[in-house]
Amino acid sequence: MLDVCLLGTSGMMPLPGRALTALMTRFGGSSLLIDCGEGTQVAIRQKGWSFHPIDTICFTHYHGDHISGLPGLLLSMGNAERTEPVTLIGPKGLEKVVNSLLIIAQGLPFPLQFIELTGREQEFSVNGYILRAFRVSHNVTCYGYTIEIPRGGKFFPELAKEKNIPVQYWNRLQHGETVETPDGVFTPDMVLGPPRKGLKVTYCTDTRPTAGLVENASKSDILICEGMYGEPEKRAKALEKKHMMFTEAAKVAKDAEVQELWLTHYSPSLLYPQNYMRDAKKIFANTLAGKDLMSRTLEFAEKE
Amino acid sequence: MLDVCLLGTSGMMPLPGRALTALMTRFGGSSLLIDCGEGTQVAIRQKGWSFHPIDTICFTHYHGDHISGLPGLLLSMGNAERTEPVTLIGPKGLEKVVNSLLIIAQGLPFPLQFIELTGREQEFSVNGYILRAFRVSHNVTCYGYTIEIPRGGKFFPELAKEKNIPVQYWNRLQHGETVETPDGVFTPDMVLGPPRKGLKVTYCTDTRPTAGLVENASKSDILICEGMYGEPEKRAKALEKKHMMFTEAAKVAKDAEVQELWLTHYSPSLLYPQNYMRDAKKIFANTLAGKDLMSRTLEFAEKE
Repeated sequence: MLDVCLLGTSGMMPLPGRALTALMTRFGGSSLLIDCGEGTQVAIRQKGWSFHPIDTICFTHYHGDHISGLPGLLLSMGNAERTEPVTLIGPKGLEKVVNSLLIIAQGLPFPLQFIELTGREQEFSVNGYILRAFRVSHNVTCYGYTIEIPRGGKFFPELAKEKNIPVQYWNRLQHGETVETPDGVFTPDMVLGPPRKGLKVTYCTDTRPTAGLVENASKSDILICEGMYGEPEKRAKALEKKHMMFTEAAKVAKDAEVQELWLTHYSPSLLYPQNYMRDAKKIFANTLAGKDLMSRTLEFAEKE
Repeated sequence: MLDVCLLGTSGMMPLPGRALTALMTRFGGSSLLIDCGEGTQVAIRQKGWSFHPIDTICFTHYHGDHISGLPGLLLSMGNAERTEPVTLIGPKGLEKVVNSLLIIAQGLPFPLQFIELTGREQEFSVNGYILRAFRVSHNVTCYGYTIEIPRGGKFFPELAKEKNIPVQYWNRLQHGETVETPDGVFTPDMVLGPPRKGLKVTYCTDTRPTAGLVENASKSDILICEGMYGEPEKRAKALEKKHMMFTEAAKVAKDAEVQELWLTHYSPSLLYPQNYMRDAKKIFANTLAGKDLMSRTLEFAEKE
């Protein structure tokens, strides 16, 4: 089970009732946060989720609206008596930027670990899921992220019996392990069906559409994607500021064959995102106008 | 006319529905902000007041909850196309702290001017009012502030006539100016009554009660004062953390002979400040439990 919550939908500045864009996910007792603008900690409280299990905080880039809430969040996590380390992941410059902000958040009771992204793509294994950062295209170095929970093939005991594999090895094979024994070498493919559909969520903001984004978002259950502007007359501004139109995000969703698209990171000038959904839905029917604290619990399609 | 708005009432961390403690005032087209925590810019928007005329931002001290919203506010002021300088005032270290935070708010379209407080008291003349900073007692260097709009004596034309002062000098005398003329030297006291009651607001947070606080708050129309704890059993904590009980703030208000006390900077553990007002009101009847966005327009007592 993967819980996904879009904590806010504002771009550039927080507004009353529209917090800055950030994503929080929960999986197996561990929580992940992507971006942390001014007010993100309030949104987490509003959702009723806990700061305490946040062990990883990723940043797309270091414009104020994506990181200004970090010192406050870390202070609040300290007040919530966290002592376990927190891993921060973001583009080059992460440690410098964060240490600079920490001038107002000193004496945290937990250590920070920094991972600076350098390549075009970088993959991490985090508490049972795979986190992948991938470069997107903004006016500063900026990354999108996917969270993937892979799922192996179904275990067929009848195959194990047929192949005379002793029952004490079944569990390890079922979990994808090759087992070397005096009775012979047993490999998972001997007892497992083909890999099943896992879970996948992609988050990207502050970017133009790119081939890499389409590729990385491929077949996501949810693509949470910036749509800074809905109004057709803002196209030139979207190009200039390196943001996306609703319709461009819809095209990415369509090309990436995702299940669902959640738009977010609205311009403060965009008062009623709902008014601009029609054209986006023409391109990709399953487009939703993201709302603050919108959430979903994703479960594996095949129950057993 | 002096508009006063308590933007938030939370201490330590912002909560849903309870923004961090900060004060905004408006006088003669110029606005002043004291403290700027995470979310202060959202509170200003909620109140419907404008960022644009904020020309002075004061800090009591540099704990995160009093300054974490500065980069975001400055960015939003920049987006609102401010180009006039903004003056920042605060304890020693101001420029270092602010420049450190500005790593996420670069390229502001207006200059910042820094005034670092050093003495126990320091007075500034700002666009028609007097701003005074005074040291209070916290676990780091911390200042309270008063805003005073002085009012001269009433002008008596009959006195001017009696003393044969030509009418062309009346206006300057009325505004407190001494006028040297071929007809003689005329001083304001020749035509003015005794100085009348002006307006005064005092703001202090993160302090124990002190004699200096009582003295500086003397005869304020409104004293906005921290009351971190209401519960009698929190007294030891108030002493340890160098904060105030509601009843201690009430004693300050009584000793300073203010008109009204607004409590603020509540501990996140204090869910219902209203429940602890009785003991404070016993000491100082005109004690109000501050609420987010509570505001008042102060006018001179004597209309003419």
